[in-house]
Amino acid sequence: MTEVEAKKPQETLQDRLAQVVELLQRHRLGEDGEYRQDNLQVEPAENYDQGQILAELQRKLDELHPADVAHILEALPLEERLTVWQLVKAERDGDILLEVSDAVRETLIADMDDHELLAAAKEMDADELADLAPELPRDVVHELMESLDAQQRERVRSALSYEEDQVGALMDFEMVTIREDVSLEVVLRYLRRLKELPGHTDKLFVVDYDGVLKGVLPIKRLLVNDPDKQVAEVMASDPVTFHPDEDAYEAAQAFERYDLVSTPVVDKGGKLIGRLTIDEMVDLIREESESEVLNMAGLREEEDIFASVWKSVRNRWAWLAVNLVTAFVASRVIGLFDGSIEKLVALAALMPIVAGIGGNSGNQTITMIVRAMALDQVGTGNTVRLLRKEVGVGLVNGLVWGGVIGTVAWWLYGSWSLGVVMTAAMTLNLLLAALMGVLIPMTLARLGRDPAMGASVMITAMTDSGGFFIFLGLATIFLL
Amino acid sequence: MTEVEAKKPQETLQDRLAQVVELLQRHRLGEDGEYRQDNLQVEPAENYDQGQILAELQRKLDELHPADVAHILEALPLEERLTVWQLVKAERDGDILLEVSDAVRETLIADMDDHELLAAAKEMDADELADLAPELPRDVVHELMESLDAQQRERVRSALSYEEDQVGALMDFEMVTIREDVSLEVVLRYLRRLKELPGHTDKLFVVDYDGVLKGVLPIKRLLVNDPDKQVAEVMASDPVTFHPDEDAYEAAQAFERYDLVSTPVVDKGGKLIGRLTIDEMVDLIREESESEVLNMAGLREEEDIFASVWKSVRNRWAWLAVNLVTAFVASRVIGLFDGSIEKLVALAALMPIVAGIGGNSGNQTITMIVRAMALDQVGTGNTVRLLRKEVGVGLVNGLVWGGVIGTVAWWLYGSWSLGVVMTAAMTLNLLLAALMGVLIPMTLARLGRDPAMGASVMITAMTDSGGFFIFLGLATIFLL
Repeated sequence: MTEVEAKKPQETLQDRLAQVVELLQRHRLGEDGEYRQDNLQVEPAENYDQGQILAELQRKLDELHPADVAHILEALPLEERLTVWQLVKAERDGDILLEVSDAVRETLIADMDDHELLAAAKEMDADELADLAPELPRDVVHELMESLDAQQRERVRSALSYEEDQVGALMDFEMVTIREDVSLEVVLRYLRRLKELPGHTDKLFVVDYDGVLKGVLPIKRLLVNDPDKQVAEVMASDPVTFHPDEDAYEAAQAFERYDLVSTPVVDKGGKLIGRLTIDEMVDLIREESESEVLNMAGLREEEDIFASVWKSVRNRWAWLAVNLVTAFVASRVIGLFDGSIEKLVALAALMPIVAGIGGNSGNQTITMIVRAMALDQVGTGNTVRLLRKEVGVGLVNGLVWGGVIGTVAWWLYGSWSLGVVMTAAMTLNLLLAALMGVLIPMTLARLGRDPAMGASVMITAMTDSGGFFIFLGLATIFLL
Repeated sequence: MTEVEAKKPQETLQDRLAQVVELLQRHRLGEDGEYRQDNLQVEPAENYDQGQILAELQRKLDELHPADVAHILEALPLEERLTVWQLVKAERDGDILLEVSDAVRETLIADMDDHELLAAAKEMDADELADLAPELPRDVVHELMESLDAQQRERVRSALSYEEDQVGALMDFEMVTIREDVSLEVVLRYLRRLKELPGHTDKLFVVDYDGVLKGVLPIKRLLVNDPDKQVAEVMASDPVTFHPDEDAYEAAQAFERYDLVSTPVVDKGGKLIGRLTIDEMVDLIREESESEVLNMAGLREEEDIFASVWKSVRNRWAWLAVNLVTAFVASRVIGLFDGSIEKLVALAALMPIVAGIGGNSGNQTITMIVRAMALDQVGTGNTVRLLRKEVGVGLVNGLVWGGVIGTVAWWLYGSWSLGVVMTAAMTLNLLLAALMGVLIPMTLARLGRDPAMGASVMITAMTDSGGFFIFLGLATIFLL
């Protein structure tokens, strides 16, 4: 495969692209937002030279929605990715940069010179600029800010002043505002004068002359009510609002719970300063669940699947190091009992079973609890009740599975007392797993930390060291 | 705590409720869809008897949005949950049943008699009925179907005929349809005659006299265009559509990628039969990520956090059993080398380190690959390239961390050859983890299976048994 690549890079690129395009669902939008059905595969043309193939590819790319081009870029290895990136029309660079994942965006920006970056960013709204700014070279950001008008510059500054997980960092500024003392007819005429409405406009924001939010006028109400009615009669005067310094994930949960499409963001004085929309919230929900999965597997952050070996090593390094320390501690626990193992070597073979089942069961408990805490279904006040339940589950599993394994151990090694020790050790380790599975996340929460943080590594460390200690300790006391 | 509960159940209920309500964000909608700021806590009133407290509670509950009542029910232990459930007004039962999780819904339905169930379901739309029907008693469903008109009954039947993960099971039937040969003015007048528009109506569906979809008219375009224009001039004539038998998760990905709010669902002949909306898609995205997390931890399904011990045991049983078998296999691998361990007991203490680091690293790899496959970023065609990268990462980690642990082993046990064996075994096991981390999900995908299915248990099984075999094997050859 490497040889073929070296000889005919473009043909390979073409194959890769065809493969990626095939992965895209058939629900494909064109650049104009309408659905495209044309076959994206470049015709297999032996008489084409490379230039023609590239031109053909470019034509196909031009027809694709920016989100799809972004998807293709993410699914291509670095070299091919940059080839395709060069084919994309310069004026679409900005839209596509906003769609790709952070890790992939970094590789694309590294490939662009300041001039290209400036051009790509010129078309962006303030909130989009703020998204991109932290990853751009300093002088490009400086030049960009210079080119903005005062209001836009202020908006970018304001968006940049919030943490990534605050509402202020996710809000946009594309809003249609109206006054409450006009008729719906006037509103309809006003809308017609706008060339187009911002995406996800399901409500208009009603403000007074100082910009203070008075209410919202859902488009649904605008459409079904008599045009002679006043906005004030029809609007919802106490809508859900957010402050820019609130937790964005809580906002996302409110969107999910109340099936919202857009909401106003107001400052402490009630002045309208921006809005949140469901598309950003969906991305956030997706990212939150993903970071949970990544975190549990000990990955620090999202990784470009085609990243270099060195980058991947750095991403995975931290948790492996933690794991190494905990594994070393478990190893020292075993070391305490080397005399017992020397006398009864069966212990060495059986001890990983006790530790392994404890780890699996503890991970089940901690996953349940962390999830329920993330959904606000339980708080630290439920600790006792949850402990009672989990200890019950641990006891049942310990007696049943411990009994099974104890019987097998008896049969294998011909010692009923070894079997009893095995059953007892498994039961005790499952109880330890249940206790720790509840107490670790509850304690982290009480300390104001993220209960998911390293939960899996911590519980496995406990059930490994604990399991070895319990099993080898019991064996030393009762068998030797 | 148990004593207090027994003596004053209502006061405890009140405390619990206060605690749950505190967990709810301040963005709380009232039943009428407007924001409520009133304090939900029932006043601490010593002079209240239980009846008065319950009446007060009921008044507070009546003001809450069904989604919030559902949330409170989910966050209460079974006994208190049923007390609150009894307080909810009968006509709201249906809305709330649709909002709670499956596990909690089961407990609520079990508490209702046929008459209550019928009353709750009477107000539901066809798609909501279809959601609920599988969990209702047979005769209730029968009676419900009898009470529907022919069109509704047909819709429920049709929705029930699709699998849970198909578009047809998630679509609703609340659509506004218009003809293409009328003016926007006529459309506006038509909308005004409707008393209200269905939720998430961001576009109207344009159909011909046979009900075949001709296009969609986004509300945005309706509002900004000249009312004298014809629908046909303004509509998008080739929108994204779905078929009812398509995979719902793919539809959710399209919603996410293209920032959609609603889309039409059409049959093979192009006839409009329903629509999908973003709220259902958000729920689906959430469920998919959750089932990934649950699956990786070896939980079969969503669990009511306050479920009984017996129910929880059943939910977790299956994966524990699988884990037991793999742990037993690993134990037998160690058993093969009991002679070596007897001679050099340090092996028993060091072997879990080799296995543990391999498991951690393998889980990192497999999580990366499964995620990238779920996002369609890689397919089986990328196997060789990904293998090359992951093997590189494994090699670096093996040499570095294996070197560290090898040095420690040398220092601890005073044998440099033991240190070298340790380093070699860790490197080899990390290479095995990298290989399997790529090959397991790729193979599952080639076989048409879900690549996430049991991936974590499988990789841990490989790196445990493999790690023990490699380390003890090398030690037996070179040290004894």
